[in-house]
Amino acid sequence: MATKRALPAVTLVLGGTRSGKSLYAERCIKNISQQPVYIATAEPGDPEMIKRIKRHRERRGSSWQTVEESIDLVGVLKMHRKSAILVDCLTLWLTNLILADYDVEESLSKLALELRQAEGSVFLVSNEVGSGIMPENALARKFCDVAGQMNQIIASEAASVVLVTAGIPQLLKVPQEV
Amino acid sequence: MATKRALPAVTLVLGGTRSGKSLYAERCIKNISQQPVYIATAEPGDPEMIKRIKRHRERRGSSWQTVEESIDLVGVLKMHRKSAILVDCLTLWLTNLILADYDVEESLSKLALELRQAEGSVFLVSNEVGSGIMPENALARKFCDVAGQMNQIIASEAASVVLVTAGIPQLLKVPQEV
Amino acid sequence: MATKRALPAVTLVLGGTRSGKSLYAERCIKNISQQPVYIATAEPGDPEMIKRIKRHRERRGSSWQTVEESIDLVGVLKMHRKSAILVDCLTLWLTNLILADYDVEESLSKLALELRQAEGSVFLVSNEVGSGIMPENALARKFCDVAGQMNQIIASEAASVVLVTAGIPQLLKVPQEV
Repeated sequence: MATKRALPAVTLVLGGTRSGKSLYAERCIKNISQQPVYIATAEPGDPEMIKRIKRHRERRGSSWQTVEESIDLVGVLKMHRKSAILVDCLTLWLTNLILADYDVEESLSKLALELRQAEGSVFLVSNEVGSGIMPENALARKFCDVAGQMNQIIASEAASVVLVTAGIPQLLKVPQEV
Repeated sequence: MATKRALPAVTLVLGGTRSGKSLYAERCIKNISQQPVYIATAEPGDPEMIKRIKRHRERRGSSWQTVEESIDLVGVLKMHRKSAILVDCLTLWLTNLILADYDVEESLSKLALELRQAEGSVFLVSNEVGSGIMPENALARKFCDVAGQMNQIIASEAASVVLVTAGIPQLLKVPQEV
Repeated sequence: MATKRALPAVTLVLGGTRSGKSLYAERCIKNISQQPVYIATAEPGDPEMIKRIKRHRERRGSSWQTVEESIDLVGVLKMHRKSAILVDCLTLWLTNLILADYDVEESLSKLALELRQAEGSVFLVSNEVGSGIMPENALARKFCDVAGQMNQIIASEAASVVLVTAGIPQLLKVPQEV
């Protein structure tokens, strides 16, 4: 386990589709830093995604530094260790890893290790995907499983965990005293 | 933004399928009013829905005034501005708007505006639909997106937001002092 | 209604797929009892399930007594009334009842009655399945409905209800004073 720190802090922001989780994380990080780094993990493959990326970018404005990286999230975090960082989102990163046949367990361990080295505030946005009916599709079921594991691992590393519902944050885990 | 009021109050009641959200909202409104108005937005098209509507109606009993309106929710709210009202539910209303090709964004703006004019207590029941695996069906994905946006908009207008899980209410947003 | 008791207590542990609900329930019961009884309701039919059962069993270790019972949950609870019991999980039990064409309503009533007779601590793990998009498949929709009803019924019997998200427990219902 990492030594407990009040600051710098890792925060996991969970929420369903269109729960307002990204906007919540953006607002938090803007209160902390003038020049935050935005790590976009989306592969801008399909038109739906391109539109969403464009909308998020316009909302953030020009003070953000944007880094697009769909696979090597750990490498990018390492390069920006002193910055205030928003990763949007872990679920898409996990999807990219699975589609490109990476070892997911190893990637998650490396991410967990890197998060312990953070020297600035890191907000990680992730989807809650396991509270609906179990999908019939075996791949979707597998994804559901791995995404749940990922959220547990990162929640256990994070100092704070926030669940966003209809734009409203609930604090699930609060930082412990050092 | 509307001027903040302690009363009359708008409450959004969120919850998954069969979470007990309607029953919770019914109980709340019965504590407030002897003759509440129930606005049913369901299109009683299929047998499954007819059965559910019948069950809800029997549960409510005869003291309620029931208005069935699948599209013009804003018009009905306007006509009953002084009443204690239960809208059951926003998700079906949204489905009806989409199927009948209405401008959803405009309809949501009008609803938000009308809620600011309420002179009685209004409870709006809505489904949480975005916490499962993303559906493969593009229409379902689109619906998921729009339903999430709707819940955010109405939650931001509401004085209180309650999330019901297995019949148990959690208060996500509480009324602010005037 | 059963007479309210501080102890022995019935606890319902809710959560999505891979939310950490089973692990949370295991930890709770190990704090209470040296020799807890684990009631596994899974039908070890498919390879995916066999793997999951094996993983859970290894995690628990040898101090547990394991009972495999996919249908007659009430009978097994009756036989172990004085024990600390973990039922994992109600959702699979419900699935088995439906597939074998049992009367679900009657089975749930019997379970509720039996829970009032418990003389030790009983933890029941159950899935939250209703917070995703409504499935197109009619059977899945029906299941979603019945699972929601079951969670409401058991939550109403339970002294405590806990919702686990990404491994983090939220207390939804706390025991009332006797």
